[in-house]
Amino acid sequence: MTVLILTCEQDVTADMVVARLDGTGVPVVRLDPADLPGGVALSGEYVHGTFRGHLSAGGRLVSMSALRSVWVRRPGVPATRVAEASAWLTEESTQAFYGMLRSTGARWMNHPDAARRARHKPWQLHLAQRSGLPVPATTITTFPQAARDFAERFPDLVVKPVSGAHPQEPPRAVPTSRVAPETDFSAVAFGPTLLQRRVAKRADIRLTCVGDRLFAARKPVGPDADPDEVDVRFAVSTAPWHPVETPPRIAASVHRYLQDAQLAYGAFDFAEDADGIWWFLECNQSGQFGFVEIETNQPIAGAVADWLSAPGPDPAISNGQLHFTECPG
Amino acid sequence: MTVLILTCEQDVTADMVVARLDGTGVPVVRLDPADLPGGVALSGEYVHGTFRGHLSAGGRLVSMSALRSVWVRRPGVPATRVAEASAWLTEESTQAFYGMLRSTGARWMNHPDAARRARHKPWQLHLAQRSGLPVPATTITTFPQAARDFAERFPDLVVKPVSGAHPQEPPRAVPTSRVAPETDFSAVAFGPTLLQRRVAKRADIRLTCVGDRLFAARKPVGPDADPDEVDVRFAVSTAPWHPVETPPRIAASVHRYLQDAQLAYGAFDFAEDADGIWWFLECNQSGQFGFVEIETNQPIAGAVADWLSAPGPDPAISNGQLHFTECPG
Repeated sequence: MTVLILTCEQDVTADMVVARLDGTGVPVVRLDPADLPGGVALSGEYVHGTFRGHLSAGGRLVSMSALRSVWVRRPGVPATRVAEASAWLTEESTQAFYGMLRSTGARWMNHPDAARRARHKPWQLHLAQRSGLPVPATTITTFPQAARDFAERFPDLVVKPVSGAHPQEPPRAVPTSRVAPETDFSAVAFGPTLLQRRVAKRADIRLTCVGDRLFAARKPVGPDADPDEVDVRFAVSTAPWHPVETPPRIAASVHRYLQDAQLAYGAFDFAEDADGIWWFLECNQSGQFGFVEIETNQPIAGAVADWLSAPGPDPAISNGQLHFTECPG
Repeated sequence: MTVLILTCEQDVTADMVVARLDGTGVPVVRLDPADLPGGVALSGEYVHGTFRGHLSAGGRLVSMSALRSVWVRRPGVPATRVAEASAWLTEESTQAFYGMLRSTGARWMNHPDAARRARHKPWQLHLAQRSGLPVPATTITTFPQAARDFAERFPDLVVKPVSGAHPQEPPRAVPTSRVAPETDFSAVAFGPTLLQRRVAKRADIRLTCVGDRLFAARKPVGPDADPDEVDVRFAVSTAPWHPVETPPRIAASVHRYLQDAQLAYGAFDFAEDADGIWWFLECNQSGQFGFVEIETNQPIAGAVADWLSAPGPDPAISNGQLHFTECPG
């Protein structure tokens, strides 16, 4: 049973995992869907009530029924490396490739449907609440008056994008920033705006989850840190990430979150306040872990390799079922 | 409890359903997400562990917790009707709008995740097989030799797109057409190609499914029909659609298909052969039904209205769960 890794050629994080897998004897096929058609080829047949499919990459042929797991790491867009690329060929190739992989019994890290759903920030916030995680008071609104009312109740606010990265090429992260007092919220009418109570944090927490295994890392905020610098991704900091224990209540909530979201992998960002409370900021289903592993020595790549090479059904999915109507009421 | 209809302004099919709903006294809000922000506004708040959201359209305000059902009919793309449209504003607005709606307990026709998955033709074919529907022998391949072998085993073939419509603006349907004998399949290497055994059909069948209710319609192929004319959408025909009974085995399989696909609505296309067998061609989760209703007088719009206005949980979803790993093995 083979592990299939979908990623681009230059991916040191995938390299780390492949190095771990190489020691296990589990066969691995690594390919970039951008190379379909061409370096990657596929074939599937629906005859006499059954489906049989094959993938070929780098001169190797693998049966789709022999796929143990699929790691959707950093796959390129299908058919973007052909001589005459087109939206039509990309659509045809995407449907053929993922349509066939969806017909296999392979376990996914993460399944494309779960990954897509998990990107919705409003849904994340609600699921975090339902899972029992502390969520800073938040509004998402196009009503200027609702923004003004919110700012009156929670005067110390940050503003951040509703979606993730700016869809330019390459995508650009939009920083979270503080809302100045006396801000005029009229422009809220021109686009949904996410306002959130600023957590006066003493540390950033990155909690990387691989199946059931949790790896928490902490980076303290310097005593002389600029309070306007709220986004750890853009902050200049010399403090390294170091491993910490995950509080049991947080661990239970995070397991519930991942179970409901049907995610095998998730990278949670929390802000730790002066009372030691971890406030949920977001869960990135494709968050990087390489920098954490390098600074903390936590064996995250090994955990990913273990999950991908494990036999049996997806441990993150109970009864092969996905919660569909997540949030009744 | 309100019915929310997402569609563009010019939509006579939606008009038919709204007319039925108007008689029931169930409140209806109809809006086009393209009008967000602007004619459509939204606001949601995550405070003290709970979510409260509101939508406003046409001067009406509706609480998201009061949504009974959402009909995803022909919605426009969010933020495409603003003065300064951009990919960024569309992404922000899409995430805010659908992210919040996903946090409600409303029933969906159809849920965006189920709709997206259901568009994958390779997945449709496999699910149809698993559901017990007769599927004509099919291959999807980028291997010229696999195409040649298939053509030798099944000499009378049609070729059709793997995905649905060509992604131009407006989208264009690509017709199914016959494969000439002695075809050179070398070009298969340049793009995934779907080849299917041609069904020598005596009629086209359109089976429209609304929840548990099935409406089958039949259009006979004229005795002087050109055998090269295989695609009913492009055929010149004067024969009208007329209602027929759904064979019980087909009905059972179709219910299984919709249950597994978590679809509340689906329009199946079958080809009926000389033995009366209905061969599965595809299931379009957003297929039109207006033309069928007009020719057959089947009360499809009324069935949609009934489904949308029904109280209680989604009858198409058992235990609020979606099958996730659909196809083990």
